[in-house]
Amino acid sequence: MSQPEQKSVSSSECADLFKRVRGQTEALVAPLTPEDMMLQSMEDASPAKWHLAHTTWFFEEFILKPFAKNYVSPDERFSILFNSYYVQAGPRHARDQRRLLSSPDVEAVFAYRAHIEAEIEQLLCAGTPDASKITDLVELGCHHEMQHQELLVTDLLHGLSHNPLLPVYQRAEPMPVTTPMPLSWIDHPGGVVEMGHDGRGFAFDCEGPRHKTYLCPFKLASRPVSNGEWIEFIEGGGYERAELWLSDGWAESQRANWEAPLYWWQQDGEWWTYTLRGPQPVNLHAPVCHVSYYESDAYARFAGKRLPTEAEWEAVAADRPIAGNFLDDRHYRPLPAESASVDQLWGDVWEWTSSAFSPYPGFRPPDGAIGEYNGKFMCNQMVLRGGSCVTPKAQMRPTYRTFFYPHQRWQMLGIRLADDN
Amino acid sequence: MSQPEQKSVSSSECADLFKRVRGQTEALVAPLTPEDMMLQSMEDASPAKWHLAHTTWFFEEFILKPFAKNYVSPDERFSILFNSYYVQAGPRHARDQRRLLSSPDVEAVFAYRAHIEAEIEQLLCAGTPDASKITDLVELGCHHEMQHQELLVTDLLHGLSHNPLLPVYQRAEPMPVTTPMPLSWIDHPGGVVEMGHDGRGFAFDCEGPRHKTYLCPFKLASRPVSNGEWIEFIEGGGYERAELWLSDGWAESQRANWEAPLYWWQQDGEWWTYTLRGPQPVNLHAPVCHVSYYESDAYARFAGKRLPTEAEWEAVAADRPIAGNFLDDRHYRPLPAESASVDQLWGDVWEWTSSAFSPYPGFRPPDGAIGEYNGKFMCNQMVLRGGSCVTPKAQMRPTYRTFFYPHQRWQMLGIRLADDN
Amino acid sequence: MSQPEQKSVSSSECADLFKRVRGQTEALVAPLTPEDMMLQSMEDASPAKWHLAHTTWFFEEFILKPFAKNYVSPDERFSILFNSYYVQAGPRHARDQRRLLSSPDVEAVFAYRAHIEAEIEQLLCAGTPDASKITDLVELGCHHEMQHQELLVTDLLHGLSHNPLLPVYQRAEPMPVTTPMPLSWIDHPGGVVEMGHDGRGFAFDCEGPRHKTYLCPFKLASRPVSNGEWIEFIEGGGYERAELWLSDGWAESQRANWEAPLYWWQQDGEWWTYTLRGPQPVNLHAPVCHVSYYESDAYARFAGKRLPTEAEWEAVAADRPIAGNFLDDRHYRPLPAESASVDQLWGDVWEWTSSAFSPYPGFRPPDGAIGEYNGKFMCNQMVLRGGSCVTPKAQMRPTYRTFFYPHQRWQMLGIRLADDN
Amino acid sequence: MSQPEQKSVSSSECADLFKRVRGQTEALVAPLTPEDMMLQSMEDASPAKWHLAHTTWFFEEFILKPFAKNYVSPDERFSILFNSYYVQAGPRHARDQRRLLSSPDVEAVFAYRAHIEAEIEQLLCAGTPDASKITDLVELGCHHEMQHQELLVTDLLHGLSHNPLLPVYQRAEPMPVTTPMPLSWIDHPGGVVEMGHDGRGFAFDCEGPRHKTYLCPFKLASRPVSNGEWIEFIEGGGYERAELWLSDGWAESQRANWEAPLYWWQQDGEWWTYTLRGPQPVNLHAPVCHVSYYESDAYARFAGKRLPTEAEWEAVAADRPIAGNFLDDRHYRPLPAESASVDQLWGDVWEWTSSAFSPYPGFRPPDGAIGEYNGKFMCNQMVLRGGSCVTPKAQMRPTYRTFFYPHQRWQMLGIRLADDN
Repeated sequence: MSQPEQKSVSSSECADLFKRVRGQTEALVAPLTPEDMMLQSMEDASPAKWHLAHTTWFFEEFILKPFAKNYVSPDERFSILFNSYYVQAGPRHARDQRRLLSSPDVEAVFAYRAHIEAEIEQLLCAGTPDASKITDLVELGCHHEMQHQELLVTDLLHGLSHNPLLPVYQRAEPMPVTTPMPLSWIDHPGGVVEMGHDGRGFAFDCEGPRHKTYLCPFKLASRPVSNGEWIEFIEGGGYERAELWLSDGWAESQRANWEAPLYWWQQDGEWWTYTLRGPQPVNLHAPVCHVSYYESDAYARFAGKRLPTEAEWEAVAADRPIAGNFLDDRHYRPLPAESASVDQLWGDVWEWTSSAFSPYPGFRPPDGAIGEYNGKFMCNQMVLRGGSCVTPKAQMRPTYRTFFYPHQRWQMLGIRLADDN
Repeated sequence: MSQPEQKSVSSSECADLFKRVRGQTEALVAPLTPEDMMLQSMEDASPAKWHLAHTTWFFEEFILKPFAKNYVSPDERFSILFNSYYVQAGPRHARDQRRLLSSPDVEAVFAYRAHIEAEIEQLLCAGTPDASKITDLVELGCHHEMQHQELLVTDLLHGLSHNPLLPVYQRAEPMPVTTPMPLSWIDHPGGVVEMGHDGRGFAFDCEGPRHKTYLCPFKLASRPVSNGEWIEFIEGGGYERAELWLSDGWAESQRANWEAPLYWWQQDGEWWTYTLRGPQPVNLHAPVCHVSYYESDAYARFAGKRLPTEAEWEAVAADRPIAGNFLDDRHYRPLPAESASVDQLWGDVWEWTSSAFSPYPGFRPPDGAIGEYNGKFMCNQMVLRGGSCVTPKAQMRPTYRTFFYPHQRWQMLGIRLADDN
Repeated sequence: MSQPEQKSVSSSECADLFKRVRGQTEALVAPLTPEDMMLQSMEDASPAKWHLAHTTWFFEEFILKPFAKNYVSPDERFSILFNSYYVQAGPRHARDQRRLLSSPDVEAVFAYRAHIEAEIEQLLCAGTPDASKITDLVELGCHHEMQHQELLVTDLLHGLSHNPLLPVYQRAEPMPVTTPMPLSWIDHPGGVVEMGHDGRGFAFDCEGPRHKTYLCPFKLASRPVSNGEWIEFIEGGGYERAELWLSDGWAESQRANWEAPLYWWQQDGEWWTYTLRGPQPVNLHAPVCHVSYYESDAYARFAGKRLPTEAEWEAVAADRPIAGNFLDDRHYRPLPAESASVDQLWGDVWEWTSSAFSPYPGFRPPDGAIGEYNGKFMCNQMVLRGGSCVTPKAQMRPTYRTFFYPHQRWQMLGIRLADDN
Repeated sequence: MSQPEQKSVSSSECADLFKRVRGQTEALVAPLTPEDMMLQSMEDASPAKWHLAHTTWFFEEFILKPFAKNYVSPDERFSILFNSYYVQAGPRHARDQRRLLSSPDVEAVFAYRAHIEAEIEQLLCAGTPDASKITDLVELGCHHEMQHQELLVTDLLHGLSHNPLLPVYQRAEPMPVTTPMPLSWIDHPGGVVEMGHDGRGFAFDCEGPRHKTYLCPFKLASRPVSNGEWIEFIEGGGYERAELWLSDGWAESQRANWEAPLYWWQQDGEWWTYTLRGPQPVNLHAPVCHVSYYESDAYARFAGKRLPTEAEWEAVAADRPIAGNFLDDRHYRPLPAESASVDQLWGDVWEWTSSAFSPYPGFRPPDGAIGEYNGKFMCNQMVLRGGSCVTPKAQMRPTYRTFFYPHQRWQMLGIRLADDN
């Protein structure tokens, strides 16, 4: 969350942002049937319909209820149905049963969205003494909704992937024809560096405070690991050689029978993958995607390298311009780089770091339910950096930290190697 | 399945039956949204949409594919998606993932139904040398679909019951005001009796052959156990007294925290139950419903009685006219009897017997995939008799045996006591 | 339990029986180390040490506590540790944690046995007004202990089988060299027959009351299915052909990866089996053993036959002399028949019947905790008949019914075919 | 493992260490019966007998097999039975089945120990060209065995705790009568500091390389959290207030029904705890023990503080003399400090840090199976520092890092608070 001491975004900028983000969410579900929007294929994922409602609930719960005068909810029961995990915001519907909410149906959820949007827009125009608190929270709500846009897309992919008909969300497009990008290394001299968000502009709470850290000299790969390189790992016995793996990783890979990234299969000697554009041959030059931390760590050991820490990643990325393949581009899958000057630090795939998700020195979550946003997940998860092809570009900052469990694969997760210097 | 030596139903009777049954299925889903038709709340249950498609697949797989000349399926992949458990009919989609089939959507499933109906109607008119085989199979398919009508309704109830909004499938109707029905006993002298289907008219394979069995003298209760009596069981510590329970039943009741029939809860000192007509106060004079075999057996022990065997039940019921509260009546819940002359042997609730579901002497299932209809379930399940308020009346016969696992409760399951004489 | 109306065994006969049975139990554990007596390899099995103590507790709980004047237990806490499943006898130690009772150690358990034996012997001599009740209960306790002798041996085999060292309980003995026994059929004309125990002499409660039942004409195989025949089933794809299996059986066989009877493995093209006499080549002419009901039922379907009902089995066995390979013979494994006149109805292997374990007409368990002996298991289990190579011969009667779940294999379980006539 | 560039320990020092450590292990099991040594109460724990054999196997596998000329194993099969997790050392017996190895029995395991000891002693005397490699490995084996001494004791406590008889490993001793120790804070100015092992003397591989890190100013509590303070947490609703907990921690605490530290119960209003000296009242001034990371983190939030990082801990502890309550003192439980000058950084209880167990910059595990010692566990576990009342004192160094999963409680695990300055 943005740091309180900073100048807030203006009400009109905020209203624009709100309108734009809300519209983008609805555009994402435009190709879906009500049936598609019911899919929940695992507890980690939620139905599209639920994402539509939950992001709306967030505005209602944290803004309208505390700040809109005489506010009456269109349906009080939604506060239970669409609370995700905010314990301090009251009881919640069980996460793995979101798929059992046939009502409210899609139409009713759209009506809920419209109702809340009108209320928020009115509140933003109203000019109250709480205006800056409100714009801060609306901005947070928009960034929250952008996070859910990414989840909505990856949850949908996971849901559809269970259908033997291999449905197509958006028609296939031709992949750019590329030449393989040679791997080079970006050197960094190490020493005491600063990292983390300084409070200017929007950031989530866990991105700060800005603080010093010490780095040994290191180097970072000039691009992510490619599908072609991953196939070398497979063919080199990567999934059979226990000595390459973390102990927990090996146990999980055996339990889950991992033999390739999620959504891959072999057909007539060629690797294919399921995407939102339907089944596609694996592009050898594109970044590998849908690999867990465990696999990534094993790959790095196979390659004689290691994963970067998040401090190393940020030290390199901090001054690189944010450009790349994002949700806004509507490719919905990682693409190969088209020129050697592109290092793909941004977009395409999130990059696993070797850093566990922990609080920065001096971190204190905000008071109240909003304080549950990130702090309570600071255990057992690993940090990823750089955003993906389904991250809205407006979310990207050098300090942005996302985090997943080391076994998870359904997000757009890839890797970039590092080494000691 | 009907016995081969019997005269078959005529083609035109069969076409009428087909039309009627198919129409009834569609009438059942008329009040549902596409979202409702996606609900699958447990592996035992299936989405309404899947029932619509599976019953159609049955006609395609067992009739059109073998008997319709030059038949081409509208979509070959449906044979995997909509096969339930017929191993000999090829691979199947995993049962617990039926909820993940957002496509084909409801509209496409209705198109599939229409297509197959047209083909079947044409085949019935065609007059081929296989005509009697075909009418036999169409009749079987209709009875199969009637079984799925019952499942569709109970699966829907189970799915909707997980929604905190407690949705209403059909508007509440007033319950008839009744006086409690006194319990009397129907005596039977025992001896060698005949039971099972004799092959005249339709029956499922497991209902025959007709055979002799020996009964000791016994008596059967004149009506099912009522909700009021069940509340006495609850208040008498029935759910806490291990000595009343089968060992497996006690373990299950502890694991699942049973304290009352499924869908019951207590509110301001009164028992309520969730039904397809929304939340309703428990009617004390109506038959208890949604109780497992384990609970039924414990109740019988509590009452100092026992459950009847299926032979005892059939010996009493065989010559009673088939009349009662069936699916056709659209009450969708058991009702209290309105006159002492009604023994409620038919309809309202299925009645647990103490008989394990086993083959009758001389039973041989038919060859091929159709032989999987009942035979392969002859282990670990208990027989119930008499049909329920969501059984189509056309299905009822004195020899009809349904069967469920002793822990299951989501069907309309009740009990009738018996005793030695 | 013996029927109350019958004349009881005399006190001195009873004391002899008691002494003999108690001695046999101790002889069984003589070759074991304290470590062996701690083995508990699954919840279904118990450590040998626990069997030694539990059988002793039975005498203390049901005889000494109610009938011995001023009786003081050597350790009151044993009544919790060594109660198996008698809910009405008070709390119990969790079944799957019996392996965690390192104290009392083996020495202390032997001391407990000696103490209780002295008390029982004194009570039997004392001549009280309750003498006949006491002798009845001591007799029941002896039969209870004989049941545990069988369990002790099969539990031990299961425990040892997990040790890669394949330990030997008793030195290997040469197998008799035999010729294959041809299979013939014993015809039975059917009709109304009587079955069940008539109350003369000892029997467990579930063996009565004696009652009439009706049998269709049938025939029973002259010997159990042999290992050689089972290998034909394996080689004929028995474990891969779903159409041979019950639905629950197929699910279990897939889950548990069954490919042969329990304890079998293939080595250099030959089948071996682990026994209490160490690893042994499978004897082709001996009865197959360690097969579940599910496998047995699939085998019968493979062979075009069926399993007998327990009524059929008893109708044939009732007048055959009880002779065979029992625990008393100390072979600890089934042996091939050595002459065609031996039908092996008794001993060698328990024979699965197609009858679910249910109460006979008129069955009422005795009052109190003793009534939990059999009645509460009358669900989900199948009856077996005839005893095995680890059943004490003194237990055998034509009416003896044992029962196991259809997936269980660790007892000495085999099959005999039947067919309609 | 010790860094290769360092001067090795001498052969005679090494022989002395070996003799001493091996003797200490045997002294630890002296009070146990063979039955006690079979206990394995969960997969995380191993039987004492297995610890005796596995620590011996380590010497055989990594020293005798590669370095002893013409070495013949007393039993080749032990290499499977007693390998713990070294994938590169060949196949292993399943971890959760160690309790099923009744043979080799305790006597045979002692014979195995004696045999290997004689061989190692001979090898140490022999003076080969590999002498320094051998002494390094023997030293490692001794430290490995000391780690297992600690595990043996905590595994035993866990195993015995399941016995309702609450057995006593060593007679109760009176607790010192103490006054509560006031809490003060040790300030640290932060800045760039060095941490990790520099390779002089023995250390495990994961303790190095020594490297720089940056610390913000902080303060560390002068003593661990006491039982009395923990009771305030309990009484303050610590186990019911979700907002105090990490999300994963709350889920685990609900799943496992945590209401107090492991082994605690309430009796007549007073807290008791099970220890190796039998049941004892909780000493309010002693450090709290048997708390998970999740509980520790919740406690810190309750107290308005945080846990230290391992770098912070080491920065404070590095120059404090190593003195405290260790295994050598045979108390087997944490004790209250007896003077204000004792900060209990060493011994009594391991102290959870907020640092995930990760590789230090430049860490490379040694080649071969020995490289599996620590590196493959660098995920999902948290670092603890300072040793406990069951850690051999000879193991302690300021750089020693142990690590456990955040849900684990059966070790002697406690906490010390920290705060920002």
